Amino acid sequence: MKFSGKTSFRVRYAETDKMGIVYHANYLVWFEVGRSELFRDLNLPYTIFEEQDLELTIIEASCRYRQSAHYDDEITVITRVNIFSRKVTFSYLVYRDSTLLAEGKTVHLFINRQGRVINAHSHPLWQKMQSAIEKREREDS
Amino acid sequence: MKFSGKTSFRVRYAETDKMGIVYHANYLVWFEVGRSELFRDLNLPYTIFEEQDLELTIIEASCRYRQSAHYDDEITVITRVNIFSRKVTFSYLVYRDSTLLAEGKTVHLFINRQGRVINAHSHPLWQKMQSAIEKREREDS
Amino acid sequence: MKFSGKTSFRVRYAETDKMGIVYHANYLVWFEVGRSELFRDLNLPYTIFEEQDLELTIIEASCRYRQSAHYDDEITVITRVNIFSRKVTFSYLVYRDSTLLAEGKTVHLFINRQGRVINAHSHPLWQKMQSAIEKREREDS
Amino acid sequence: MKFSGKTSFRVRYAETDKMGIVYHANYLVWFEVGRSELFRDLNLPYTIFEEQDLELTIIEASCRYRQSAHYDDEITVITRVNIFSRKVTFSYLVYRDSTLLAEGKTVHLFINRQGRVINAHSHPLWQKMQSAIEKREREDS
Repeated sequence: MKFSGKTSFRVRYAETDKMGIVYHANYLVWFEVGRSELFRDLNLPYTIFEEQDLELTIIEASCRYRQSAHYDDEITVITRVNIFSRKVTFSYLVYRDSTLLAEGKTVHLFINRQGRVINAHSHPLWQKMQSAIEKREREDS
Repeated sequence: MKFSGKTSFRVRYAETDKMGIVYHANYLVWFEVGRSELFRDLNLPYTIFEEQDLELTIIEASCRYRQSAHYDDEITVITRVNIFSRKVTFSYLVYRDSTLLAEGKTVHLFINRQGRVINAHSHPLWQKMQSAIEKREREDS
Repeated sequence: MKFSGKTSFRVRYAETDKMGIVYHANYLVWFEVGRSELFRDLNLPYTIFEEQDLELTIIEASCRYRQSAHYDDEITVITRVNIFSRKVTFSYLVYRDSTLLAEGKTVHLFINRQGRVINAHSHPLWQKMQSAIEKREREDS
Repeated sequence: MKFSGKTSFRVRYAETDKMGIVYHANYLVWFEVGRSELFRDLNLPYTIFEEQDLELTIIEASCRYRQSAHYDDEITVITRVNIFSRKVTFSYLVYRDSTLLAEGKTVHLFINRQGRVINAHSHPLWQKMQSAIEKREREDS
């Protein structure tokens, strides 16, 4: 089974807009929270990537909005990842209880500290990440 | 020629992140600035829509990131619109001088104050908006 | 002992700026998270206040910044409250482990749905809130 | 007369919250816009400070909220500055037309790229800044 990370949090008042619902750009922030928690869940917090000079730069983001989220709602983000030599794709499902609020996708390239796009396949962290994902997928199946 | 709105502003320090560039979710906010200025440019500021009970709710957003934007950069957003009976689509080009930084698209449904999706074709503002766009397209051609 | 609410969360990448640290305005958002969790902790989530037509509008906010917060830091906000007939004051301490990062204060007036400032002393929720705080202070002492 | 910078912009939809007004933390972002434009107005954009290794780190911020701001309002921020050897203070007035919406203050220390607090009195940019302010105050009087 495909490994997924899962994280939950409350909607902040700051995240709402004058329509009384969550402002749409905040879903992209929630996707980022989903990515961060997925990395932590693999025992590879993204700060380790930064320290070891392997970073991600976003090249695409998209979101489909199904239902509105409101202040103080408890939100759950389910995040899935696919890693390739040069890029990583994430997909996201945003729920309030069993109600799907939104689904999204982001695409990121591997870069080094100088901002140069790199093939990360031989980087030790790429290998660790790949192994950690495979291990979790075996455990979950 | 297809009518487009154009608006410029400086990148705020608040909009940057620890990579030293603009955080990606802010492009969706800039798209919203593009929409607002396009409505104003048609002499139909979005606040008039709100007053006359015709609002837009977003159902899709996407962005492709080409180049990074930095603090204090002067950003220009070019916005184009297509209106239909039940929905409106906008496309956006984000520039720093002649450099294309990002391109995006959003899709919105017409709703009333109760949040109900409506066919806006017979709403006086829908007609005014359509005429204003056509007028501008004739003038620009 | 003075009752305090306590809540913890991770710093989001979105909250950092090009200095590599958390952008200062976000501490005011964290104070709001502190307030929300304090209300929940009293079994009186702020959404109940909204439903029963007793809201808070901010008239003052201040923050002293001691140390920087960084991406992925685990932040704890300790919130204390004082309620009066017409206003509520909150004070906040923001920590990463035992390091004090910032301290702040906000002042809010009670208003009704029409935005009118009111004396809340006789509102049932004011009484409940006062009792809930006193109960917690007895329990904690 | 005391030199002041002045900048205007429209309220973004993203800046509103479910009360239908601008979320209070955004005033601190507006103060930052005020500072940026004041520096530009002195022909010393803040990016020059960054390039020449003289930065500002915030240690205090406060705001008093008088009246609400709404989506699409045209906002004007008037910013005044006082520079000292080790710190800079700014004060801000936020207006919609002639209505004062908020007033605030921030205090910043001079730091170098390593984040170390420094006495900036002998830094060439400190001198230039001081001269530019004095020149503007003579011109304005």
